[in-house]
Amino acid sequence: MHQLIVVRGSGKLADHQRGYPRWELPNNKLRSLLEAGVGGVILLGGSAAEVALRCTQLRRWAGQPLLLCADVEEGVGQRFDGATWLVPPLALGRLYGREPQQALELAERYGQCTGRDAQGLGLNWVLGPVCDVNNNPANPVINVRAWGEDPATAGALAAAFVRGVQAAGVLGCAKHFPGHGDTSSDSHITLPLLPHSRERLAAIELPPFQQAIAAGVASVMTAHLMLPELDQERPATLSKPVLTGLLRQQLGFGGLIVTDALVMDAITGRYGAGEAAVLALEAGADLVLMPADADAAIAAIAEAVASGRLRVEQLEASAERRLQALERCAGPEAALAVADPEAAAQPNQVLALELVRATMETAGSSGAATPQAGINLIRLDSALAAAAAVLKATAPALARPESRGWSTLLLEGRSPSPWGTDTDAPLAMERLGPGPVLLQLFVRGNPFRGSAGSAEPWPAALRQLARAGRLAGLVVYGSPYLWEELRPLLPPGVPGVYSPGQMPLAQAEALQRLGSGLGLGDTEAGAGFTD
Amino acid sequence: MHQLIVVRGSGKLADHQRGYPRWELPNNKLRSLLEAGVGGVILLGGSAAEVALRCTQLRRWAGQPLLLCADVEEGVGQRFDGATWLVPPLALGRLYGREPQQALELAERYGQCTGRDAQGLGLNWVLGPVCDVNNNPANPVINVRAWGEDPATAGALAAAFVRGVQAAGVLGCAKHFPGHGDTSSDSHITLPLLPHSRERLAAIELPPFQQAIAAGVASVMTAHLMLPELDQERPATLSKPVLTGLLRQQLGFGGLIVTDALVMDAITGRYGAGEAAVLALEAGADLVLMPADADAAIAAIAEAVASGRLRVEQLEASAERRLQALERCAGPEAALAVADPEAAAQPNQVLALELVRATMETAGSSGAATPQAGINLIRLDSALAAAAAVLKATAPALARPESRGWSTLLLEGRSPSPWGTDTDAPLAMERLGPGPVLLQLFVRGNPFRGSAGSAEPWPAALRQLARAGRLAGLVVYGSPYLWEELRPLLPPGVPGVYSPGQMPLAQAEALQRLGSGLGLGDTEAGAGFTD
Repeated sequence: MHQLIVVRGSGKLADHQRGYPRWELPNNKLRSLLEAGVGGVILLGGSAAEVALRCTQLRRWAGQPLLLCADVEEGVGQRFDGATWLVPPLALGRLYGREPQQALELAERYGQCTGRDAQGLGLNWVLGPVCDVNNNPANPVINVRAWGEDPATAGALAAAFVRGVQAAGVLGCAKHFPGHGDTSSDSHITLPLLPHSRERLAAIELPPFQQAIAAGVASVMTAHLMLPELDQERPATLSKPVLTGLLRQQLGFGGLIVTDALVMDAITGRYGAGEAAVLALEAGADLVLMPADADAAIAAIAEAVASGRLRVEQLEASAERRLQALERCAGPEAALAVADPEAAAQPNQVLALELVRATMETAGSSGAATPQAGINLIRLDSALAAAAAVLKATAPALARPESRGWSTLLLEGRSPSPWGTDTDAPLAMERLGPGPVLLQLFVRGNPFRGSAGSAEPWPAALRQLARAGRLAGLVVYGSPYLWEELRPLLPPGVPGVYSPGQMPLAQAEALQRLGSGLGLGDTEAGAGFTD
Repeated sequence: MHQLIVVRGSGKLADHQRGYPRWELPNNKLRSLLEAGVGGVILLGGSAAEVALRCTQLRRWAGQPLLLCADVEEGVGQRFDGATWLVPPLALGRLYGREPQQALELAERYGQCTGRDAQGLGLNWVLGPVCDVNNNPANPVINVRAWGEDPATAGALAAAFVRGVQAAGVLGCAKHFPGHGDTSSDSHITLPLLPHSRERLAAIELPPFQQAIAAGVASVMTAHLMLPELDQERPATLSKPVLTGLLRQQLGFGGLIVTDALVMDAITGRYGAGEAAVLALEAGADLVLMPADADAAIAAIAEAVASGRLRVEQLEASAERRLQALERCAGPEAALAVADPEAAAQPNQVLALELVRATMETAGSSGAATPQAGINLIRLDSALAAAAAVLKATAPALARPESRGWSTLLLEGRSPSPWGTDTDAPLAMERLGPGPVLLQLFVRGNPFRGSAGSAEPWPAALRQLARAGRLAGLVVYGSPYLWEELRPLLPPGVPGVYSPGQMPLAQAEALQRLGSGLGLGDTEAGAGFTD
């Protein structure tokens, strides 16, 4: 039964590099589990180059075909520096409303790019697409990771992604079954409750999964949430009515069913590491992802077989599904394209830029007047998390205004407060410094989660700056909901840009689109983000 | 003459990953220069794993033995994540005053560790040790990179480092000749002037270089500074009296003389890319590092040979010195230790911790009373630069107080100001929040360079917190000068720690040493920094 377990390892090579040593197995443990036949590893951390070496190493330790997966939903570069980082899926969901054919074509290329990059690293299983319908903008955990806000959009685009990623010889994974879009709590922390009837599920939640299944998706991941209409007792991940009844029998899915990470407190805190694994298999899962304790899970499964609680035939069928999935994968490539990195990277970079351009939105005037340089006010959830990716010191959002004489004021979750006590004029202006203010807000689905207080009063701050004649421009990177809240507040003559992507490539394009009035575009036309 | 040029490349594989595209050649250019016979590459950026792949790739492109170097002065992990990051050299300089034998032994192991790690990555040339005597605490560019504040200390330890690093089959490099310690401007920006006589140089600046040469150091790097007593016209890097007269003839150095990066404005801005390279070779340099334009440098050298300005015999002698140096190197290893990363990393990690422990200093009481959780006030030069290395979200300085209920207040160069207008009580306390304050200052040699204003009033802030009974503890990470300024201000009963190293390993140890009163030690004894 070892092969039904997928454990977590660091993408980095040495133990001392692990970012989360509580969750990432040390090398000696990882190696002995692989030698014992554990079926897969989910990797987090490390650059693309490091992960490529790591995958080679893990395959060598396993000595058998191995599932190697990662949570890459926005291009492999989202997790592994050096691979391609793409705009979040919801950007294409919005585009689909205006240009459905273009959005579909881009979603399929999005999948191909993700598959090619994954394959280049040695990964054979991409844990995407998210098939949840983000019909609750307050959803703290899905949000821009979803492909749409309605079932038709999410389904059409997720299916296109599946076709793309699997054409590259890499397995896809539709998640989080039966739908995690309409929740307002985070199952990383608690167990959300979805009160919906079967009819409502069939109308909203299930269609994207059905489309992904029809597109041949190799695997489906379960959600950690309660659906009392289907199972009063157990969360979807551990529910036979959900996994066997609904997914296997009613929807006719014949591929791999994998749990979401069992280590999450909503599951392990409630059932324990061993029992959670047994319950998942009993419910109809084929693979158990990230049990809190792999040894305990293996022992509990063995005991459940011995006691007759789990049938050997069922586990053999799961093992057989795993082997069939592995046979669908292209063989692991030698390694990353060391011989000619540009040939591998260029088509992907072209797509990344095309996606940035197709999904960016602008509002207001492009600013005819050239104001003097002023304050570049940047809001990040966390500078520490962002610096590694979004906002290195050389990032255009930071470096370009600085090179033109603007001063940066960087607000992040742990900064001293910029807020005073006046709710109509919340920004403590004396802490800003003089001059026009360019507002760049990096916010994904979950506004200002990192801040100590509750929601920050950006609409009031925007009005305050506008009243004072000091608002030079606005860029929202990430959340369409924040953009839609702020855009109507832009005074005439002040340009605004919405960029679904937060990466440097998107920053350069956004500053360009702010218009010549601000003087923050690239001086050499088309020179891209290497400013 | 191509082989006398050392160009700069990114340690990352693909062009789009370059952090500094203005300075790092794109792959097509780098490849064609290597195929034409360029003699070496200096690498910056990338993880250890990525650099290992990169070195293999560059050697393949060159098709000949190649010098592959990096500015690693504080362990290879200082630049390349995954390798070992050691305390700054000046930490051993301070230890040498108390325990000279221990410091010497540790300096040699420091060199061995650096050499082994470099070798594991495929680098064969470490651009260290710094042989400058840091007798000017205001020095903005050398500071904790030096091995000592006096010639005897700096020389003894630098020589020990040379023995260690070269024993691992990797070339060392004594820099910045004839001594950059007594300057108060940064040659990255302007050309510092050193008014010293030959007698003074012989007494202070030269001895560490003489000791490194006696220890067999393979190369010496020149400094970009004016020494009017030796050469009224040209900076040391381009000066025949300095390179040929003093270094080659008077000190009898027979190894490789390499310039510091010619791209720096102090040189290229004044002489131009081609002429600077010719002047350096004329002065007696063997290798030209990072010319602003490699093609221009090669063309100018060719023209200087054609016109008789440079003798072919001299360039051939330099090429011969380069080959001899390469013959001293161990062959490139297959790659990073993928088969058994722990076996490679463990002895280095043991040394890293030993260095942290041997060089940490404490003051004051270890705090008997347990205060309630309060404010963890962290000062960084730049959160964006630091996050990649020093202060990831999981770093002990941040994560451990947070896990015990402390609130973090993160100040960095671009944060809103925490300062009010009262010079005796400069901290605007109402922006801090309530409770005791733990002050953690991450400052290297160049205090608060990232801040908009001039020096920040930390001594007054410390007194202010002490007067208010709110100072719970102080940790200074990096600068011994800031520590010595603040330590006498600690009131009785308030613990203080000085940690020369800023890395997570050092943070865990420093919090442990703050004492049980603060409750920030590791709960499991000896569990290290994986808290």
